[in-house]
Formats: sequence, structure tokens, C-alpha cells
Amino acid sequence: MALTHFDGKGDAHMVDVSDKDVTSRIAVARGYIKMQSETFDIISEGRAKKGDVLGVARLAGIMGAKKTADLIPLCHPLPITKVSVEMELDADLPGVRIEATVKTTGQTGVEMEALTAVSTTALTIYDMSKAVDKSMEIGGIHVQLKDGGKSGRYEAK
Amino acid sequence: MALTHFDGKGDAHMVDVSDKDVTSRIAVARGYIKMQSETFDIISEGRAKKGDVLGVARLAGIMGAKKTADLIPLCHPLPITKVSVEMELDADLPGVRIEATVKTTGQTGVEMEALTAVSTTALTIYDMSKAVDKSMEIGGIHVQLKDGGKSGRYEAK
Amino acid sequence: MALTHFDGKGDAHMVDVSDKDVTSRIAVARGYIKMQSETFDIISEGRAKKGDVLGVARLAGIMGAKKTADLIPLCHPLPITKVSVEMELDADLPGVRIEATVKTTGQTGVEMEALTAVSTTALTIYDMSKAVDKSMEIGGIHVQLKDGGKSGRYEAK
Amino acid sequence: MALTHFDGKGDAHMVDVSDKDVTSRIAVARGYIKMQSETFDIISEGRAKKGDVLGVARLAGIMGAKKTADLIPLCHPLPITKVSVEMELDADLPGVRIEATVKTTGQTGVEMEALTAVSTTALTIYDMSKAVDKSMEIGGIHVQLKDGGKSGRYEAK
Amino acid sequence: MALTHFDGKGDAHMVDVSDKDVTSRIAVARGYIKMQSETFDIISEGRAKKGDVLGVARLAGIMGAKKTADLIPLCHPLPITKVSVEMELDADLPGVRIEATVKTTGQTGVEMEALTAVSTTALTIYDMSKAVDKSMEIGGIHVQLKDGGKSGRYEAK
Amino acid sequence: MALTHFDGKGDAHMVDVSDKDVTSRIAVARGYIKMQSETFDIISEGRAKKGDVLGVARLAGIMGAKKTADLIPLCHPLPITKVSVEMELDADLPGVRIEATVKTTGQTGVEMEALTAVSTTALTIYDMSKAVDKSMEIGGIHVQLKDGGKSGRYEAK
Repeated sequence: MALTHFDGKGDAHMVDVSDKDVTSRIAVARGYIKMQSETFDIISEGRAKKGDVLGVARLAGIMGAKKTADLIPLCHPLPITKVSVEMELDADLPGVRIEATVKTTGQTGVEMEALTAVSTTALTIYDMSKAVDKSMEIGGIHVQLKDGGKSGRYEAK
Repeated sequence: MALTHFDGKGDAHMVDVSDKDVTSRIAVARGYIKMQSETFDIISEGRAKKGDVLGVARLAGIMGAKKTADLIPLCHPLPITKVSVEMELDADLPGVRIEATVKTTGQTGVEMEALTAVSTTALTIYDMSKAVDKSMEIGGIHVQLKDGGKSGRYEAK
Repeated sequence: MALTHFDGKGDAHMVDVSDKDVTSRIAVARGYIKMQSETFDIISEGRAKKGDVLGVARLAGIMGAKKTADLIPLCHPLPITKVSVEMELDADLPGVRIEATVKTTGQTGVEMEALTAVSTTALTIYDMSKAVDKSMEIGGIHVQLKDGGKSGRYEAK
Repeated sequence: MALTHFDGKGDAHMVDVSDKDVTSRIAVARGYIKMQSETFDIISEGRAKKGDVLGVARLAGIMGAKKTADLIPLCHPLPITKVSVEMELDADLPGVRIEATVKTTGQTGVEMEALTAVSTTALTIYDMSKAVDKSMEIGGIHVQLKDGGKSGRYEAK
Repeated sequence: MALTHFDGKGDAHMVDVSDKDVTSRIAVARGYIKMQSETFDIISEGRAKKGDVLGVARLAGIMGAKKTADLIPLCHPLPITKVSVEMELDADLPGVRIEATVKTTGQTGVEMEALTAVSTTALTIYDMSKAVDKSMEIGGIHVQLKDGGKSGRYEAK
Repeated sequence: MALTHFDGKGDAHMVDVSDKDVTSRIAVARGYIKMQSETFDIISEGRAKKGDVLGVARLAGIMGAKKTADLIPLCHPLPITKVSVEMELDADLPGVRIEATVKTTGQTGVEMEALTAVSTTALTIYDMSKAVDKSMEIGGIHVQLKDGGKSGRYEAK
């Protein structure tokens, strides 16, 4: 099986999607950021009181989705029609679980936009908490669901 | 301990670094992307022959570091003086291990730039390989080393 | 009545416009920048002779419209099909009156693009004239007309 | 007196600041957005409960300051060292009063960054509230304070 | 014959393409960069061995095409559906011949995107080789082919 | 002699300039765009009357210089302190001769910024005149002068 991002000679190119249908497409990606318990407590409490780390990170994730074609060299620019970022404080991790949903009406899928939203959200949580915890770790970033194009529905097991 | 990205009232702000010294600063971040064995083989062979996934991803990572202040809401823009991205094919993972090194001569650290470089490199590997494997997972993104500012040297255990 | 930019839990999101029709949409926004008489005279004369403040500001406004989705966090990226910026020297203000018209064929309106064009035009006039007048004031920025979507025609009184 | 953004022939250029000193500079800009009483109430209540318009707008303002050199054609790119955006709900307006403070250690002033922060904050409030009120008006945008360069301290009366 | 980028009063505007059909459009642009024989040899050999100048330049060209509407003031933003950049080492020049192909399904042509891709590719070759040769020259940049809109097929002689 | 943009293994990296001195640096680049006589006449006359192609192109060139580190993958971001773009109508070409001058106080040179300014200026002239002439050709883009760093003064013959 071949990597479509290279042509017959092995040179990178932006794949031709001119002949693909304009359809409704959706992608959901997930990931998390793990931290020390003390950091988790500060973020959890801050939510209610002193500084909303998750609110800032959510916005960064949404804006990050819009920058995907600028960040990922061979991604097509797409008219995104929806972005949402959900976060859940998970005391067992401890840390924050992130899920991004992106939709478009276009000629190619939006899983890169969803992955970029998750990744940017996690990086922003790191940035805002790094004064108290440099050991945080971002992981588990994967595509959970993709639907709407010719290749059909994909759902992670 | 407090999160510096919020002021006394709990509102987000870009921290004042006007009075910090202009010093040489370095940060190293690491992460990986796991994939199926077949995908790993395609990328490994492609390196030599048909399409250099890692070469494209490296460039994306370097350019990603330059976009950090644009992506992360409260990051300071910085005159980056060096970015490198090393990758290692790890058959045991199986997948690719990524390490980014960023330097600046400035008033604040560059760990966000290094983390963004790793993250963008991994996302680009996903993008270029997703035609053959949608189940890849990005993880282990953390700061390995940070040095050069007032807060001293940090090294991950 | 609810603010659509927040979901049921009160979290910000980019509203889903996937099911909205692709229609021709137009928006017109207006605003002004007030200045001292001496500044007004320099700009008015410069127009003909020495340096075209309004020409530079117009271009900035047009380019600003294209950056709207990058500037305003929850704005959808849109394929803009027309931008024009009209300016009128008003000796009674004294200052410059600005009107921007933006069109798209898309799934959501372009009033933010028109407002951003007016705002960027005014900021550029400030920038180019600030060496002679720091007291200029930008005001009256509002949507004058919006038409083409499901919510119908809106015209400012 | 001449506009410095044009050379002897009347052509626009980015002024040469190579020989200006690198000094600590600060600028404060102000502005407001007026709205209907009902809109004011929704935003005021949302602050506490359902959707934080001001939190999103503040972040947009801070990120907007970082985009100034990209938006304003003849602005110099600058290493911003601090941005904060304060907002006050003013029931008499009724609306929101905005104040942005920007600092740099550089060769030219940051009043354009402060004005752009105020302007972007106001535009974002408009965007987030336009579903309930299209008649909002942005105004009073001016430089309140500028200090730190050769031209000395400027304070609006 | 008139320049369409100015309105009746001679002011620049972004031309209204709202009423143009959404059609498949293609453009091909060409250009070259000339260099000293020694530089040519280093690049040619590097291709196989030590550092792939052309691989980096190709990627820059592809990404450059996506930035066209950001670089060229009156260009419309377009959903690009394909970009490829071909390069040929020409020992007679000596130097590199560049050809970029861009496609869209949109309301206006993509010749500016193809020209920007060629130009960015050439500039990147310059950047990567300037340590050994400052005298390189970029030239011959022109539109080779344009097809798909109302104005019909254009092919350079 | 080696290409500095690759490390010992042949992988691209952004060269480490941390230890280079912060000095005043200048670069001058030149180029031209050739066109048909009729196009030349339209642009020449428009200058005075109906639409200032050169004014728009100059501004695009100045803004293009600021985007250099975003366009050229391995370029360092730099605090540009001056950009000017001079143009000369040359009836013998026939066409427009372009010269860009860029200065910085930084750790690396600005020849890429000057080349990018020339290139963007020429592309914008093409864009604004393409309705009347698709056969224009951009050429002769080279570095005319570079001074201020460790490698000393370079001047094209």
C-alpha cells in the first residue's frame, strides 16, 4: 500500500482532491495531559475560582483547528463549519481528558483539524501550568471517529 | 503556589517579562508516534527510497516552533536562534521517537517552542501516513531539559 | 435569548453551520477616526501630493478582512468574494469616515469581516499619522447592513 | 510637520528605527462597546454563569496584540514582553469599557499593539453577542498613555 | 483596457467574484534559479547524499501556495485542491528549473498561487545555498498555462 | 564547502546563531518584471491618474518582508528595523525595476527578507495587471548588497 502524499517519483505533493465530492464530514480526536496531583488540584479549583485554565485552553484548541493547513505542510485548506473542544477533569489520571469535534462541508476529511485542536489544547494547558509543574506529559492523541467521505466510517476500537 | 498566567483577579494575561534578563536559553522536548508494524515498515523503507515522511515531518516541526506564539495564547514572541528535530525509527515501539531542541537569546524560556515542534512533527507523520493507518497514537510528549533562565536547570528524570 | 457561541454547559464553541445554506451574503460596516484640524489638513493634502495615507489604509482594511477568522476566535473561515473600503474626508468631524463592504458565497455572514476591515483601516490611519497627532480617536464602528442569510436583512437605523 | 511613514518622494516605507535605543516602553489604550440593556444583562449574568463573553474577548485581545505587525502594514515587529486587557461592565453606557496595557523592550513604541488589543477585544464581544444584538457600536478607541521612548511621556487629557 | 483591481475612482479593491461560476481551475507556472557550477554540483550531489535542498524547497513552495491570499493584497482566498512542485537540475543553466501546478474548485483562477509556489521554491533554494554562493539569480517566472474559468485557456508560447 | 542548513547527518535544521553578535545589518535586493508595451503604458499612466499599481505593490513588498520567516522554512525570525521598496518605470524593458532595502539589529542577515520583498512586489504587480497581460515575466532577482555581519560586505558585480 502506498503513501498518497508522495507521487510516483517519491516527491511530496498536496494530493489532488479536485474530483472528490463535497460532502459533510466529521472527525473526533482525543488525548490527555497527565500531571502531578497538586497541579490537578490547582487547575480543578481554579476552574471555579481564580483562573480558568480550561477555558483558555479550549479557545486555543478551537483556534488551533483553524490553523491546521498552515501547520501541516500537505493539508488542504478547508472551510471548517464547526469546532468544539470538550474537557474532563480525571482525578485518576490525574489530569485532563480532551476531545475535539470538527465538521466541514468539503472535499477532504478533518481528522488533522481535530488532532491539531486536541494537541493545541494540551499544549496550552502545559503552558499555563508550567510554573508549578514541568513534568506534565501529553499523550493518547488519536482519531476516535471519522465519517463522511468516500473511505467510509472509521471508529477507534 | 499560583499559576502565573492569571492576575490577582483570576483573569488571564501575558506575564510581564520586561525585567527578566536577556540570557541564552535552551529547551529539549521529546515524544513519539506509535503505529502498526506495516506502517512502520513503509515509513522505514520510504526513508531510503520512495518518499521521505521523516524529512517532511522534520521541516514541519521546525516551522511549527516558529508559530508557537501564534498558537499558544499567552506565549511571548521570541527571537528563536536555533531549532533542530531529531527522529529515530524504533522497531520495538513500533514507531518514531522525536526530539526537538530550541534555543533563544531572550527574556523567557523556549520549552513551549520545543513541545510545539515535537507535536507538529508527530501530527505531520500522522497526516502523511493516515492513508494506510488511522490508528496511530501520539504520546509521551514532555520537556526533557530546560536551562538558561532564572529558575535554573530542569531535567526530566 | 441565548448567546449562540456557548453550548449548553456554557463553554465556548464554534457554532455548527454545516446545515445552513450556501447563499450569497453581504455586509456593510461603518466607522470613523477623528483628529485635530492640522492632522486632517496634512492627510487631505497628502492625498494629492506627498503621501497617500488613505491608499495605504484602504489596502490594510482589505487585507484585514481576510484575517478575520484568524483574529476573532469563534469566527468561521469563509471564502470572501469581494472586499471594498470607501473613505470620505469629513472636514466637520474633522476626520475620515470609513465604509467597508464584504461579500461571500458561504454558510454564514460576513459582518465580522466588514467590521474588521473598518477597524483595521482606522488603526492604520492612526499608525500613519501618530507622529503628528497622538490624540486621534476611533469610533462609531457598527454594522450598517447585513443581508443574504436565513435571519434576513438587517439595516441600521 | 511631516508624516514619517512616507519618504521624501511621498512613497510609503517602514521607518528606519535602527539607531533608536532599546528601551522599556509601555502603552495603554482604551475603548468601549455600547449595547442594548438586554444584551448588557445577558453578558453580565453570563460572566458568572453560563458563558464568559469577556473571558473569550480578553484572550482575543491579547492574541490580537501579537498580530499587530501582521495587520498594520508599516508597523515594526516587536518582542512584546507583556499584554493585559482589563474590562469593566458599565451599566450606564450600557456596555463594556476596555483597557489594554502592552510593554516591550525594543526600539519603537507599542501604542499600535495596545490599540489593536482594544479593537480586537471589542470586535470579539460583538461577534459573541451579535445573535442577540446587531446594533452594538464600538467607540472611544484612543491612546491613554505612552511612555519610554525618545519622544517622552504622552498622556491623554 | 482597464485594470480590474481598481474601481471607477481609481481606488484598489478586491474584485467581486460572487457571480462567477464555481468551476475546476488549473494553473501552471515556471521559473528557475541560476547558480555557479560549484553550487550546482553541491546541490546535485546533496540530493542523493548529504542534504536534500530540493526536498526542502519543494515543501516550501507547496506551503507558499497556501499563503498566497495572505501575501498578495487583492487575491481572493481559495480552497486549493492540489499543489505540486516539480524541479529539474539543469547543468546547462546551471541551476534548477521549477514548475508548479495548482488546482482549485472555485470562483477565480489560481495563477497567483502557482507563481507564488515557484517564487517561494526558488527563494528557499537561495536561502539553503547562500552560505556557498551569494550570486544566485532567480528569473523566468511566468504563467505557463491557465485553464478552467470564463476567460478560457491561456498557454504561454 | 558545506551547506550550513544541514547537519552532519544531512538533516535540515535551523542553524544555531546563538553565539553570533547582535549587529546592525543591511541587505539590498533587486529584480524586475517585464511586460508588453501596452501594459507598461497602462501602469505608467495609472500612477498619476486611475489606479496606483506601484503603490499597492510597494506595500505588499514591505509586508512580504515581515513574512519571510513564515515563508522560508529555515529562516530565523528577526526584528526588522527598516524596509523600503523603490520602483522605477523602465520603458526600455519595458517594465518595472524593483529594489528593496531591509535593515535589522540582530544575529543574522536580512538578504532573504530583501529578496522576499522584491519577489512579493513583483508578484503583486503581476496580480494587478494580469487582466490585461498574462505574459509578464519576473526575473533578475538577486542580492545586490549585504553588510554588517561576520562574513563582511558582499556587493554584486
